[in-house]
Amino acid sequence: MTDPFVIVGGDAAGMSAASKAKREAPDRDVLVFEKGEWVSYAGCGMPYYIKGDVENLEDLVSVTPEEFREQRDVDLRTGHEVVAIDPEAKTVTVEADGERFEQSYGDLLIGTGARAIVPPFDGIDLEGVFTLRSMDQADAIEDYVSDHEPATAAIVGGGYVGVEMAEALDERGVDVSIFEMLPQTLQPFGEETAQVVEEHLREQGVDLHLETAVQGFAGSDHVEAVEVEDDSVSADLVIVGVGVAPNVELAEEAGIEIGETGAIATDEYGRTNYENVYAAGDCAEVENVVTGEPDHVPLALTANRAGRAIGSTVSGEPTETGGTAGTAIVKAFELGAARTGVIDDERAREAGFDPVSVTIDTETRPHYYPGATELTVTLVADRESNRVLGAGLVGPEGTKRIDTVATAVTSGLTVTELQNLDLAYAPPFSPVWDPILTAAKVLSGRLE
Amino acid sequence: MTDPFVIVGGDAAGMSAASKAKREAPDRDVLVFEKGEWVSYAGCGMPYYIKGDVENLEDLVSVTPEEFREQRDVDLRTGHEVVAIDPEAKTVTVEADGERFEQSYGDLLIGTGARAIVPPFDGIDLEGVFTLRSMDQADAIEDYVSDHEPATAAIVGGGYVGVEMAEALDERGVDVSIFEMLPQTLQPFGEETAQVVEEHLREQGVDLHLETAVQGFAGSDHVEAVEVEDDSVSADLVIVGVGVAPNVELAEEAGIEIGETGAIATDEYGRTNYENVYAAGDCAEVENVVTGEPDHVPLALTANRAGRAIGSTVSGEPTETGGTAGTAIVKAFELGAARTGVIDDERAREAGFDPVSVTIDTETRPHYYPGATELTVTLVADRESNRVLGAGLVGPEGTKRIDTVATAVTSGLTVTELQNLDLAYAPPFSPVWDPILTAAKVLSGRLE
Repeated sequence: MTDPFVIVGGDAAGMSAASKAKREAPDRDVLVFEKGEWVSYAGCGMPYYIKGDVENLEDLVSVTPEEFREQRDVDLRTGHEVVAIDPEAKTVTVEADGERFEQSYGDLLIGTGARAIVPPFDGIDLEGVFTLRSMDQADAIEDYVSDHEPATAAIVGGGYVGVEMAEALDERGVDVSIFEMLPQTLQPFGEETAQVVEEHLREQGVDLHLETAVQGFAGSDHVEAVEVEDDSVSADLVIVGVGVAPNVELAEEAGIEIGETGAIATDEYGRTNYENVYAAGDCAEVENVVTGEPDHVPLALTANRAGRAIGSTVSGEPTETGGTAGTAIVKAFELGAARTGVIDDERAREAGFDPVSVTIDTETRPHYYPGATELTVTLVADRESNRVLGAGLVGPEGTKRIDTVATAVTSGLTVTELQNLDLAYAPPFSPVWDPILTAAKVLSGRLE
Repeated sequence: MTDPFVIVGGDAAGMSAASKAKREAPDRDVLVFEKGEWVSYAGCGMPYYIKGDVENLEDLVSVTPEEFREQRDVDLRTGHEVVAIDPEAKTVTVEADGERFEQSYGDLLIGTGARAIVPPFDGIDLEGVFTLRSMDQADAIEDYVSDHEPATAAIVGGGYVGVEMAEALDERGVDVSIFEMLPQTLQPFGEETAQVVEEHLREQGVDLHLETAVQGFAGSDHVEAVEVEDDSVSADLVIVGVGVAPNVELAEEAGIEIGETGAIATDEYGRTNYENVYAAGDCAEVENVVTGEPDHVPLALTANRAGRAIGSTVSGEPTETGGTAGTAIVKAFELGAARTGVIDDERAREAGFDPVSVTIDTETRPHYYPGATELTVTLVADRESNRVLGAGLVGPEGTKRIDTVATAVTSGLTVTELQNLDLAYAPPFSPVWDPILTAAKVLSGRLE
């Protein structure tokens, strides 16, 4: 009898792998060790729970632990922490209820995820200072807002968590400030896209402090203010959202190779340097489809897909995990912002490209049709090959059009090929020349 | 001095070519002969003028004749009909105000468009029976609705014009019946997509008669009823929208080759069998990017793009017109329906494929996020190569996702490659697995 498929971590990658493996090879045991209590939840939905759009935190759970155990026959052990991996002996050491035991595996998946980075700010331990990464944290923030009705909130970091939490807290009647060290919010989305978002955030009453380093938090028992150079800004609540770091310590201690990005190195099947040891999700690298280099893009789809692929692979059907185009989309109040591929000049040059870009303001529908809104499109291509490298989009609607560019960059299309795509047109949906095509036309002119 | 670039027909293809040619080679004369008075108008917007969403018919004009003449320096002659082409002598014969004259050309573009097919129904000439192809017809229909306030309307044909006019007339308070000879509406969209549309049309109060051949129209001076086998249905207004036929007579008489589809045969630059004679838009064939065969898809984007490319080509920069994926989208009351590629089994087999398809019901957002709506996705692939051939989508929102599949079919992606695309996810915009990815997953299972 085959040794079981053991999974460390019960979130997107782990539970996708568990489900797929049981479906493909029902006779093989699948064990999942999850140190917390929540599994298979939509972390990206947490801001909308705090905002009040989602009624119960439990609504974010797609499959409950009971369903995994009873319907999917997965041996899911919550409250179980894997504290060591021995890839030679093919065992893991598990801690639960103060006890330790060894578990042998045939195949192992490391799906330990990522954690919120917590800089050593003064006052970081004050009541009312939170990060938002786990369901328990989401729960705690919601409770705090309900119980204390903060008048002001400071968000440290202008990334996804920052803009989503600004919207959520604003909806709860809180005056929001955002503090960002960089000269722009949403760094991966490019300057042009971020500028539109920033203008909108300010219109919505968000007090935006760019190029502003937070020095610490002040307060007696609970937080009362954020300290920055020469200033102190009132904050009854603080959310620290300055990024995430992959949880790789367990792997590293076991001699599993860590890549240049700081996440676990994997091949196209999600395999680490040890046979039968896989890594997927926010702790692992995947190939960037534009650069061909390993990348670390801790997002949900990548985790789900890689987990699922590994579930197939360990069941005898080798399946590639798929790469990442770094595609992302975020809502900021009434705007959507989206990005895909390589849009940062420096990053493009590092990957050997000579980037040329355009930013244009287009509309989502013809001028005569009611309800057209502005859509700002940034499109980037390589000068020599004319290959499309990436795009950023921002506007009140239509930002899912980023998928067209994601498909194009993955397929290696040139700007001319993008421009010649037969995209859907009818007045209620698009101008004759879809904004993506218009951007390609303009960029094409720059490349001549 | 180069002989002028002469264009026959002042709509999408013709005016795009004229504008581009003047931009690229400002010194060369560009003459456009348009037999009517309207040029460069958005024909697809006409139903929304009749509906009342667009206030003035003139709003549909993107560039006026005066702007073409004064700002773009195009010698636009409205009220001028080209009645003959002599490709050997490189001249056209033009009729205007009862006079005839010859005009020589260096390059010629035939952009004569297509006309509404008018079957020889009894009573076709009754007052109140219309086709909808030209701006004058849109004007006449609007006048008729305003003046006569018809209680009932019959639409013959369940294609684009049929469903769009059903919505428009319903909005004007008219009871609408649609008569369609085939067993389904929106034939190019596939059965599965059409069924969802048909259910919706009925919910909206449209009286839908499928597999019903119209025999004629009855009435004394104006139309009063539609006659079908064994029945007569009241109709104070009739719109005949049974399709279009390319205007190829002028080309055919000049010895220009007509393709198998019945439209003018062209190469990848839009050239006909005569050097320096081009054809573009609704009168011309273009290559289908899935089958590689010539196709006739009389839609606006194809016309605009081909015209623009020919404008470049005749100015010394050879530019391919781009192919068609047959991508289309249509609004039917509260639904959008979209299609791309080859989705009809018979057509796929003719093109040498072995089609396998799935139809799934998905949602546009995660279950917990407010406002998710159903999206029905049909995805078709070739069994042997696993290449994606086409898709149909239908639902209240999110149907512009068809562009992802249009890009995929144009790039020749397999179902696995489609499934591995990194599409944008955040709860306000999409489930983790975008509906297109979910369909690819399911189809992938069928292909194993």
